[in-house]
Amino acid sequence: MESSTLRQVTDRDDISFLLNEYCRALDAMDLDAVAAVFTRDCLVEYGPEDRLKSRGRAAIRTALERLWRWKRTSHHLSNIQIAFSAADEARANSYVIAWHEAADGSTATVWGQYRDHLVRTAEGWRLAVRRQVMNGNDAGFTVNLFPAERRPAPAGWVAPVIDNPLREK
Amino acid sequence: MESSTLRQVTDRDDISFLLNEYCRALDAMDLDAVAAVFTRDCLVEYGPEDRLKSRGRAAIRTALERLWRWKRTSHHLSNIQIAFSAADEARANSYVIAWHEAADGSTATVWGQYRDHLVRTAEGWRLAVRRQVMNGNDAGFTVNLFPAERRPAPAGWVAPVIDNPLREK
Amino acid sequence: MESSTLRQVTDRDDISFLLNEYCRALDAMDLDAVAAVFTRDCLVEYGPEDRLKSRGRAAIRTALERLWRWKRTSHHLSNIQIAFSAADEARANSYVIAWHEAADGSTATVWGQYRDHLVRTAEGWRLAVRRQVMNGNDAGFTVNLFPAERRPAPAGWVAPVIDNPLREK
Repeated sequence: MESSTLRQVTDRDDISFLLNEYCRALDAMDLDAVAAVFTRDCLVEYGPEDRLKSRGRAAIRTALERLWRWKRTSHHLSNIQIAFSAADEARANSYVIAWHEAADGSTATVWGQYRDHLVRTAEGWRLAVRRQVMNGNDAGFTVNLFPAERRPAPAGWVAPVIDNPLREK
Repeated sequence: MESSTLRQVTDRDDISFLLNEYCRALDAMDLDAVAAVFTRDCLVEYGPEDRLKSRGRAAIRTALERLWRWKRTSHHLSNIQIAFSAADEARANSYVIAWHEAADGSTATVWGQYRDHLVRTAEGWRLAVRRQVMNGNDAGFTVNLFPAERRPAPAGWVAPVIDNPLREK
Repeated sequence: MESSTLRQVTDRDDISFLLNEYCRALDAMDLDAVAAVFTRDCLVEYGPEDRLKSRGRAAIRTALERLWRWKRTSHHLSNIQIAFSAADEARANSYVIAWHEAADGSTATVWGQYRDHLVRTAEGWRLAVRRQVMNGNDAGFTVNLFPAERRPAPAGWVAPVIDNPLREK
């Protein structure tokens, strides 16, 4: 295992800042700041339906106006993993808990991941491709995001009894 | 984009450690360790009411005794963004999911942000000013925190229909 | 406060990647990838019962097959704190929100921490000892994890009234 270069360490910090900036700006509905984290020709896909895909900064800015239907949101980003495919290209995987509250007080929560391709531009690191996948969602969240991959149990697998025998299930 | 210096990269790591230490120590109700993350003359504001503001290490230590009214808590910190305003001064924004459980089993959850000013002291980086803002809260959480800023929709904006048409709302 | 070496900064990045990899691989039920984050002779303890302890990579891989009883899971890692006890040894504390959904749609959520000892091996940093502790859990989560430490209030402590007087409790 070689040590990273200072440039790589700095790049990971800058990329993490950018991924967090998307969440901060989105929760503030500062859509100019949200759009600025993407490349001009970005591709953003939240799910398989055409209306959940955007090409280009202007398009993603317009698409994310849909979050105004919520009264409040909170996007909690974690599990950031970054790998460089070239000096100016990186891939990132991160997790998000996205909480949304409607005007009537009802809420919708999704447990997901962002799968990103980033490039170094004259403006700094930017998101060139973002795909969101969904690990889970509550009943309030009904947008058709891509499901995360999960390997099935082998045929014939039987769940062990591991719950605490002292408690009722 | 210039590369950060090794000192800046180290400083970001040290500041992140400190922000996480507040959560770890608070959930353990190790109030001496909580107080130690602040400067001696810190200003901490959780909300607009006087009783939610503390000045100085001793005051914040005493104020946070109020968390003993909970049986268990868990403060999950993420979305850390750090920027240096001088060699020995930084600003940080982070997100927190703060879960609290009362003795009767009822819970209160807040989805918020910490807005921090940090300074490098002889002891290392410390929080000089902390303000908490609230992106959201559930019905169980009734403390009057500062609301996070969120830009309103333009006049006349109409929410698009984007929910999955295959599901009942 | 001395600046970290570039090696230490890189090591923290590598260790963070590894801690996140456990979550990513576990949610994907890629058990080979989960097992690969541990040392060959690792000790993993989720709770005080023997069936919640595993010794060695093969054992932890088999033990974690129990997550197939869930339909979907999402492990959100945050609050990573890393300290080096030697050039090739580190301790880490991190927080996790682990969300699980059963086939019947019921869910179980635990709010916890991982307490880890890591070692640098020929393959890179690996988890040698992992202990999970639980800050909190909802009613759906019934596995007997270790409880996190929390200092009790001093004898005679009385909770202050701090809730917003404008709201009904």
